[in-house]
Amino acid sequence: MHPVVDLIREKLGDTAVLTGDDVTARPVSRIIKSGCAAMAIIRPRSTEEVALVMRLCHDAGVAVVPRGGMTGLVGGTLVGPHEIALSLERMTGIEEVDTLTQTMTVQAGVPLQAIQDAAAAHDLLFPLDLGARGSATIGGNIATNAGGNKVLRYGMVRDMVLGLEAVLPDGEIVSSMFKILKNNTGVDLKQLFIGTEGTLGIVTRAVLRLQPAPRSRQTMLGAFRDFAAVTRMLAHMRAASGGNLSSYEVMWRDYYMLLTAPGRHAPPLDQNHPFYALVECEGADPAGDDAAFQAHLEAAMERGWLADAVIARSEAERLQLWRIRDDVHYLTTLSPLFVFDVSLPVSAMDAYVKDLRAALQRRWADPTLISYGHLGDGNLHLALSCGTAADKEAVEQLVYTPLQALRGSVSAEHGIGVDKKKYLGVTRTPAEIRLMRALKAAIDPAGRLNPGKIV
Amino acid sequence: MHPVVDLIREKLGDTAVLTGDDVTARPVSRIIKSGCAAMAIIRPRSTEEVALVMRLCHDAGVAVVPRGGMTGLVGGTLVGPHEIALSLERMTGIEEVDTLTQTMTVQAGVPLQAIQDAAAAHDLLFPLDLGARGSATIGGNIATNAGGNKVLRYGMVRDMVLGLEAVLPDGEIVSSMFKILKNNTGVDLKQLFIGTEGTLGIVTRAVLRLQPAPRSRQTMLGAFRDFAAVTRMLAHMRAASGGNLSSYEVMWRDYYMLLTAPGRHAPPLDQNHPFYALVECEGADPAGDDAAFQAHLEAAMERGWLADAVIARSEAERLQLWRIRDDVHYLTTLSPLFVFDVSLPVSAMDAYVKDLRAALQRRWADPTLISYGHLGDGNLHLALSCGTAADKEAVEQLVYTPLQALRGSVSAEHGIGVDKKKYLGVTRTPAEIRLMRALKAAIDPAGRLNPGKIV
Ligand SMILES: Cc1cc2nc3c(=O)[nH]c(=O)nc-3n(C[C@H](O)[C@H](O)[C@H](O)COP(=O)(O)OP(=O)(O)OC[C@H]3O[C@@H](n4cnc5c(N)ncnc54)[C@H](O)[C@@H]3O)c2cc1C
Ligand SMILES: Cc1cc2nc3c(=O)[nH]c(=O)nc-3n(C[C@H](O)[C@H](O)[C@H](O)COP(=O)(O)OP(=O)(O)OC[C@H]3O[C@@H](n4cnc5c(N)ncnc54)[C@H](O)[C@@H]3O)c2cc1C
Repeated sequence: MHPVVDLIREKLGDTAVLTGDDVTARPVSRIIKSGCAAMAIIRPRSTEEVALVMRLCHDAGVAVVPRGGMTGLVGGTLVGPHEIALSLERMTGIEEVDTLTQTMTVQAGVPLQAIQDAAAAHDLLFPLDLGARGSATIGGNIATNAGGNKVLRYGMVRDMVLGLEAVLPDGEIVSSMFKILKNNTGVDLKQLFIGTEGTLGIVTRAVLRLQPAPRSRQTMLGAFRDFAAVTRMLAHMRAASGGNLSSYEVMWRDYYMLLTAPGRHAPPLDQNHPFYALVECEGADPAGDDAAFQAHLEAAMERGWLADAVIARSEAERLQLWRIRDDVHYLTTLSPLFVFDVSLPVSAMDAYVKDLRAALQRRWADPTLISYGHLGDGNLHLALSCGTAADKEAVEQLVYTPLQALRGSVSAEHGIGVDKKKYLGVTRTPAEIRLMRALKAAIDPAGRLNPGKIV
Repeated sequence: MHPVVDLIREKLGDTAVLTGDDVTARPVSRIIKSGCAAMAIIRPRSTEEVALVMRLCHDAGVAVVPRGGMTGLVGGTLVGPHEIALSLERMTGIEEVDTLTQTMTVQAGVPLQAIQDAAAAHDLLFPLDLGARGSATIGGNIATNAGGNKVLRYGMVRDMVLGLEAVLPDGEIVSSMFKILKNNTGVDLKQLFIGTEGTLGIVTRAVLRLQPAPRSRQTMLGAFRDFAAVTRMLAHMRAASGGNLSSYEVMWRDYYMLLTAPGRHAPPLDQNHPFYALVECEGADPAGDDAAFQAHLEAAMERGWLADAVIARSEAERLQLWRIRDDVHYLTTLSPLFVFDVSLPVSAMDAYVKDLRAALQRRWADPTLISYGHLGDGNLHLALSCGTAADKEAVEQLVYTPLQALRGSVSAEHGIGVDKKKYLGVTRTPAEIRLMRALKAAIDPAGRLNPGKIV
């Protein structure tokens, strides 16, 4: 055990420091179930305590890996035996809900769901939502610039953070806890900490931007004769529904077939269409919005964009439609299973999937390619099954390589962590990577914070 | 003349280089009318030429000051006799309007208005709008993170840029020309160049995010009995109008009196109310939106939030109402005139203005304080007249100092440039300024790009 651990114990108290079995009893993450390998897990209660830990570790030459809810999917919380894990689990204060500025001030360890609930209690909305809402923390959401189902309407976490406080690798506290929307006074420093997976600073507090709670919701599942119709319908719904369109989730036929196979969900629409999309609007006028939504669909049917559609008539029906989009665990019936979260211009998406399918077929007998995603954001999820687990890298090459010419992304939402480091160069140019390295060197010259992640 | 100018002439051709009278004939900016003092103005035609100029100047030890439309209000384009001005005026290509991804790809020298027009030609909207639209360039808009009248709905320029290309001080081209919304692959590098006034890189190209063109518009001028009613109405309109609310411009009585004085604009509402607000929605359903807008106003009247109101019944009436908000040139009838563009939490705004008025009255006989602004964004414009021109600094102290405790901003929109450098510390903490300096040192160690601006 490095002496810095005792030093920290002395300053922060016994309950702040876990060692030995208390460490190994905890998993690396909720995905990687093996025991945490850190020399200690430190659990500070305040920004000042985080700063103190960083200062001590900096001077001692010990690296620190921050961890929130550990729901990350790319190994960002992986920590070695000579490193310290810093957990935000005791920084769960919701400091203020300000209904006038429509902001909430929180500590970084607050679970996403607690934030959603606190906003709802004031008839407001924190529009980030994702499956891991019960465990994921707002600090982790910020560090990964999380997305979710309503990016089309509300953006990613980057768009929901007005103010931020972070501790730098040397223990300096950089507090930009603004509630204001407009502040043109030099570099927007919070951007350094959003989406950089804890490599440039530890997020300790944030001011979040809230939205009015929606008063109405319209949901439909549509079927389309080709991809052009899917994108035409997206443009139509965007223009026709004003700011109300909140989700536009596309499913290729293979995905729909898998989810509506016998014993799973009853298919609300015929299984013969090449494309399906789940479309949702959130508005402020329950009566008017329903009628308008209906009218938009009728117009789309008349023009031949929409081949068939079913509208949810109740919350139960709505949830039933969403289950077809959300029950991705049926994918685990495939083996081997390779999953991807890529992003590319909508205009290139159809050809990309077709070309990928052809490439897989050239190489493996009977490959499975299941595609679905947040079409409105250009975000495509792919689940592939072909060959054996040993073919992982070959599959990755086929999926990622074409993205380079399309200026697509190897990670739309989940980040790079350690898992996708090898493919960073597909999305980022050498000059971009050099600039990222220069920033890391400027802020963390000794490499004390989450070393080995991203670059 | 430094030999680097001849070197540049050799590489880029004669038309790319202005010297002597051609330089002094041009003003420093549209505000500062005195002749440009640069040793030369260089006018590259492409990113590669910008990179070449930067490389040559970097090696020669000559500093470079970028300039777009020169409509900036804080002296950001000020350039000295040993420096080179780099003008983007020949980089005016609109490379693509992609209706499927709703993006436009442009060179940095394109005037804002040309971009608005190109979007409109495809029934799309580029939602940035400001008075200087005819001259200001998109590169300048990006470098200053411009705001304008519809920030409430569409955000600032930061929210409208998907991809960016910039040339670093040493001539390296960093191209992040993404059309995709989601790209979680490390630092979001474009944020370094947005709002940093040309101190970290020269913006050469951008991918802009377009919006559907609105199909309906509702505009009203309302009167309020107190500030609480103004903010209550804002929350009401936000919640009731879904995503449609696009402007919420507040005017204190002094402002309204000045603009509706005899011989100026006829007052559409009685002059006895303490507050007025111009409220505008943009929607997708002309018939339904009008009725809904009317209903929201009636509800607000019944609840006593809105004391009186007039709705524009035609485009002519709408423009008439906007003129009362926009004809700020009547402020120049005041002398001396001190103007400010600050930002603070809405919850603190009323008291801030009252306290400021009291402080002015304690110090000067008969001071004038005229306030108005983008309430929805917490952005307050102040026009003060008191004492003499020599009192400028004393007035600045009274306006800026209280913002520190409120975590407000000395510059909501216009930037720091040279004019507000002295007050950067009101808004930014020493730790923030240190971090900004560290970034500048990492990217521009020799201080070649727009030296002396911001920090
Ligand atoms: C069922 C499920 C569904 C999911 N759905 C989505 C989805 O729809 N969209 C999406 O974007 N993601 C999704 N994810 C991924 C994951 O939930 C998000 O990445 C989440 O934001 C991570 O939060 P966390 O608190 O669990 O972070 P962790 O997993 O603890 O950490 C993630 C990364 O952030 C760093 N970090 C954590 N806290 C801090 C801090 N305070 N300061 C600095 N760095 C920190 C860590 O070092 C690590 O690199 C999903 C995950 C699961 C398991
Ligand atoms: C009548 C009027 C109304 C205005 N209204 C508003 C308003 O409502 N909201 C608002 O935000 N602003 C407003 N402004 C301010 C101004 O128009 C904006 O700041 C505008 O974005 C500047 O664009 P420009 O091309 O003129 O830039 P310039 O004035 O040429 O330059 C501004 C700064 O950006 C740098 N720069 C310019 N081009 C580049 C580039 N390609 N790469 C890197 N750096 C560059 C310059 O060095 C300088 O520091 C207004 C100005 C006027 C005159």
